[in-house]
Order: sequence, then structure tokens, then C-alpha cells
Amino acid sequence: MSRIPRIVILGAGYGGIVTAIRLQKQLNYNEADVTLVNKHDYHYITTHLHMPAAGTDNPENARVEISKLIDEFKVDFVKSTVLQIKPQEKKIILEDSTLSYDYLVIGLGGEPETFGIPGLLEYSLNIRSINSVRFIREHIEYQFARFKKEPTRKDYLTFVVGGAGFTGIEFLGELADRIPRLCREFDVNPELVQIINVEAAPTALPGFDPELVEYAMGVLKDKGVTFKIATAIKECTPDGVILATGEVIKAATVIWTGGIRGNRMLEEAGLETSRGRVVVDSFLRTKEYENIYVIGDCSIVLNDQGRPYPPTAQIAMQQADVCAHNLIAAIRNSSPREFKFSNKGTVASLGRGEAIGIVGKYKIKGYSAAMMKKLIDMRYLYIIGGIPLVLKKGRF
Amino acid sequence: MSRIPRIVILGAGYGGIVTAIRLQKQLNYNEADVTLVNKHDYHYITTHLHMPAAGTDNPENARVEISKLIDEFKVDFVKSTVLQIKPQEKKIILEDSTLSYDYLVIGLGGEPETFGIPGLLEYSLNIRSINSVRFIREHIEYQFARFKKEPTRKDYLTFVVGGAGFTGIEFLGELADRIPRLCREFDVNPELVQIINVEAAPTALPGFDPELVEYAMGVLKDKGVTFKIATAIKECTPDGVILATGEVIKAATVIWTGGIRGNRMLEEAGLETSRGRVVVDSFLRTKEYENIYVIGDCSIVLNDQGRPYPPTAQIAMQQADVCAHNLIAAIRNSSPREFKFSNKGTVASLGRGEAIGIVGKYKIKGYSAAMMKKLIDMRYLYIIGGIPLVLKKGRF
Repeated sequence: MSRIPRIVILGAGYGGIVTAIRLQKQLNYNEADVTLVNKHDYHYITTHLHMPAAGTDNPENARVEISKLIDEFKVDFVKSTVLQIKPQEKKIILEDSTLSYDYLVIGLGGEPETFGIPGLLEYSLNIRSINSVRFIREHIEYQFARFKKEPTRKDYLTFVVGGAGFTGIEFLGELADRIPRLCREFDVNPELVQIINVEAAPTALPGFDPELVEYAMGVLKDKGVTFKIATAIKECTPDGVILATGEVIKAATVIWTGGIRGNRMLEEAGLETSRGRVVVDSFLRTKEYENIYVIGDCSIVLNDQGRPYPPTAQIAMQQADVCAHNLIAAIRNSSPREFKFSNKGTVASLGRGEAIGIVGKYKIKGYSAAMMKKLIDMRYLYIIGGIPLVLKKGRF
Repeated sequence: MSRIPRIVILGAGYGGIVTAIRLQKQLNYNEADVTLVNKHDYHYITTHLHMPAAGTDNPENARVEISKLIDEFKVDFVKSTVLQIKPQEKKIILEDSTLSYDYLVIGLGGEPETFGIPGLLEYSLNIRSINSVRFIREHIEYQFARFKKEPTRKDYLTFVVGGAGFTGIEFLGELADRIPRLCREFDVNPELVQIINVEAAPTALPGFDPELVEYAMGVLKDKGVTFKIATAIKECTPDGVILATGEVIKAATVIWTGGIRGNRMLEEAGLETSRGRVVVDSFLRTKEYENIYVIGDCSIVLNDQGRPYPPTAQIAMQQADVCAHNLIAAIRNSSPREFKFSNKGTVASLGRGEAIGIVGKYKIKGYSAAMMKKLIDMRYLYIIGGIPLVLKKGRF
């Protein structure tokens, strides 16, 4: 190519922002034009969103202005919403303009997977953006205020959390911590509040170490959470949920954490997807187009047994490292690197001072696990923003 | 009377609480049984409620536990809701018990006066209790969160305040101060927010000094308030208000501050009332029963021109002093005192650092008026709870 190649990165989540940061560090002057496109002018720390959703932390601590992370002399930032990807024309349609690319990185993240459960899309809330968690926090507080006006409406004080995966469990921990404070603030008898978790799988945290799962459920039960495991939600209504067992739970708040599928734009672009996610090759490229990389929640990487790794921040960041390397390799005609997920471990918080996790071959729980969780959060801040960002946002 | 006379005080607002405090100070041991009845176990500082309603102060700063104000060896406190007053039987029906009295003090406060405007009772919010102002605060915040979900719904960001009396004006000042902060918190363009005041009278703050009224409106206009003076509300709907001019204002929030009438239980008790308020004699007694005193918002005292004084905290407290004196005089067979309202002045706050007022013969405005307002608030805390209460709640 005689002119400077154009790289466009869609989405500034874990995958997109780390790719952009790696590129701005490793690319030489005028080696490529890099453009990062994102709906908001901030990046948010998705793994932290369960706290502002429950109101146990300020949403500001879960987001960072993109201008603080990106060197605008090296990477162009476009604040816009992607409407369509046109791989054959190498074009991206934004809501107010069009971008051309030579290389594309898709890191547009996921959408809630509702498994076809009627009403879930309309009547449940999802923990998935700064706006959505601010809404959930306000919604929860509002129910307490409403209850004081209409004290017969116990459904205002009933909170159903659908799904006992990582997000569900971490949110339950925070919500259970917040409830006593809300009860004091609004003069509400804590015994009237119900937090109910409904999970269709035969266990909470499917695939996780059973001993730690039991510990986690014990911690959450002590905080007042009721579990309905191996129980599917049949329908979500404006008044609550109907379970597969026929039980009706009246609740003014239903929070759905039961699953993630890839962004719909990928299938609309003609890429082969499974639940909206693209199975990428070992270099993280789509099988249709060599110049399109897909990373993060909208990609699927298979493990040695041929099963997909669950979408996490950890895998997205490791993908971003390899993706940035391979983009530069493509431009320089050097060798690309194969992606191999290296699991550093997983820690799930259970509210203040409590967590469970597996780090290397060690099981950890309680306070030490909670400390480990904080370290992981701070390590991420360090990766994207160095010491200044750790100092600014790291006091979770 | 051979047995100890029983005094029952209904309501722990300004009138009731000050009466109780005066009685516990002035009565001798075993001279009377005093019982104070109130719906909540706290007294609230009504003149401060416009701040927590707008969210510019914590509701905790607007209330004081009654147990901190009352010496329980001298005054019995009953936390209950009054259902009925039976003057002929000298009995009070509470929701869970019955009380007998020899002397009754009614300080049950007011209710919103809707002047028969349809929909106002159902769809507007009122600044009148801790629960109601917590609701208003949460409701306002919730509209910002909702707007981020549905950005076409400008009515979520339209706030109609009905009435430009003292409560309306003071609330407008706080709300206008809070809006820019909410806009930052929720990433909302401040230009999309509308605060509209609608007042049927030909001027804001009817009866107040015109120069100061003009100053107040100027301050509030600069903060973004739109005034529609001499404009009546024809109807309040779930979607907003319809004005007498035919104009329709779509607003998810309508706060009605347009008037106060007396508690309905007074007319139900067979007392002669005007807008639910009882015209009392010069000793603050009802004309039907010598042993019933009515003070505060549910009483009417006429000025020299035969016109009622507006219901304020100031007049309620002065009435409480005379009421306590006259109760003791009745028990001791000494002379009662006539009530004469002595207007010490009036200050209305207009938000942070701004106020207007008349103190003695001086007009004050701006920062000095705002300081005067704080002094008045602190003086009240001192009257009911001494220095400790001023230190605890006085940092408004």
C-alpha cells in the first residue's frame, strides 16, 4: 500500500480501548491512521458496574474519559453510534458520518441474552452501561420512596435478580449491603424487603468450584438473599415474574443478569455468528474477512475441548494485546501471533469484605479474596491509565 | 378537680412540640398529665423541607427525634395516627387505642388546598412531610435516569411548580440550584431542563413587598426559572398540566405548593371551620368548647382588619407560648393571656446564598438575607432543643 493504512476500532470497552492503547504505543509515526469509535466519550469498567447499580459506589468510579486514555496526536477518537458494518465496501456507517477502513477491529460488546423469555426485554433491567446502572440505582431508591406512600405495596420492596452467574452474584452482594442503609434512610422495616435470586441452571456460578459456590451462597443467604436455583423464569411481566413452577413473584424490580449475546450488528454484517458472537480464527480474524478482527464479548474463542471460554474482561484484554500485535504485523508484513487464553484466575465479590476466587491453583475466600479483587481492579486501571488513574479511581 | 387533669396535644409540629416543651418546663410535679400524640416519632422542621425535596440537603437535617425534645418523665409520647376527635365525649380515637382528655390542644397541621382543580390531588406532589420530600427528591432524580433511557421524552425534564407563595418560591430556588448538579451527574444537557412556575394570583408572593418580589423573580429567572404569573392551572393530568389559557405543559413532575387548608378531622369533629381551619377566640380556644385549643395551620387568627394571618411557623410558635400559658392558667385558675401576633419579619430563601426578607422595618436581600434566614432556622433549633440541637442540625 502506498498510502497510510487506516485502522478503525469499533467500541471502547476492554477489548477496544486496550487495542487502541497498544497501537498508540507500538506504531511508528505515520505507520497507520487509527480511529477509535465509541458511543460515549468515556470508557466504562464493566466489571465494576454491579456496585453503582446497587448504589454502593458512585458511577463516576466506574468510568474514565477516553481523552484521558488516548493520545489524540496518535489516535483519532470519534464519538458516535455505529449503525452498520459493510465489510465488502470496507465502510462503517455511523449515525452522522461514514468511515472507511483497511483494517477493522470489532469490539462492540454484547447485549442481554433473554433466551426467548417473554417480557424480559420490556420489563427487566440490565447491568450493562453507565446509563443503565444509574437507572437501576435510582429505580431501587424510588421503590423505597414509593413504598412509604403506599405501604401495602410489598412488591415495591421485592427485588428479583435473574441469573446467578458472575454479574448476578456480584450484584446480589452489593444489593444486600445496600438494603439496610436504604431501610434506615427511608424508615422501612428491613424484614419487609425481599431479595430473590432465580437461576435456571442446577447451581449458582455454573462451572465454578462447588466448595466456593457453597461458601458464596452461604454469605449471601446470611445477608438476606433467597435463592431459587434450578428454577427457570417463564415470563417477566410489568408486575414481576412467573416461574416455570407456576409460582408468581410480585416485584416492582426485576434485574436480568442471565446471559450475554453478541451485538446484533455482526450478524447483520453477514458474519457467521452463534448467539451473535463470531468464532474467530487463531489470529482473531473472522473467517470471511482477513482484515476484520473481532474481540471481547462479541467474539468466541474455543478451548482445547472445543467449548467457548466465557466472555470476561480478562480474555478481552488478552485478545487486545494479540490483536494490536497482529494489526502491526499485517502492516509491517511480519508474523502474526496466535491467541492462547491464559487464565490468571477469577474472583467474584460478594459485597463488602467478602469474595471468592481461584487464583492459579489456589482457592481463596473471605477478606483475602476481597483484597485480591481490589488488586485485580487496580491492575486494570494501571494497564489502561497508569499510576495516575489508579490513584484517581482506585479507591473502590 | 380532685384527680390530676389530663392534657392531650395532637400533633408535634411547630405548635404542638413547642406547647409540650413549654408545659414540661412550667408545670409543677403532678400538676397535670401531658400526652403528646404524633404520627411519627420525629418532629420535622417544615420550613426546611424545600431543601431535602429538591435534594440540596439531607432529610435528616429536617427532622428531630421527639424523644430528644421531650422529657419522658414529664410528657408521655404516643406514636399513633389520630382517626377521630370526639369533643362531646372528651375522647380521641387513635388507630390502635383511645385517649381521654380534660384539655385538648389540636395542632394537626394542614393539608394541600387544591381549590377544586381536577387531578391535582392524584397527580401532583406536595412538600409536606419527610416521606413526601424524600419521594419528591427520588422522583426528580428518577426522571433524569429515565430520560437517559428515552431521550425523546423531554417531559421527563420538565418540572412544573404550582404556586408562587413562600413554599413555591423557596423550592424553586433549591430546585434551580440542584438541576445543574443533576445534569452533570446524569450527563444531561442543562438546556433541555425546564422549570416552570405557575401562579394564579397577579403576582408572586402575594402581599409581599413588590420591590423584593421583583428581586426574587430576577434571581430565580437568572437560575433558569420560567414564570407564568396570573395564570391558573385548569387541570392536572398524568402527563402534566393544562392551563386556563389552554396551553398544555407536558411534565412528568408537578409539585403543588398553591395552598394549605386545615386538617379534615376538625370539621368532622363538628367544629366550625373555614377551609378546614378553625377561627379561635382570643385565648386560642374553639367557640364550641372551652377546653379545646387550636393552634398552627389548622387555626385562624384574624388581624386588626379582620383578615386571617397566613399560616406560618412563627405564628404557630407564638400561639404555642400562649396556649401553654392558658392551659396552666386554666388548671391553676389564674388569668389566661390574650393572643396577639407580633410579626418579627419574614425571610424567604432563593437557593444558595440568596434570599429576600423584611425584618422589622428593614428590607433585606441577597447574602445578608440568606444569613438572616440561617439565623432564624438556628434560633428555632435553639428554642426546641437548645445548643446541642443547633450544633447537631444547624449546619444547613
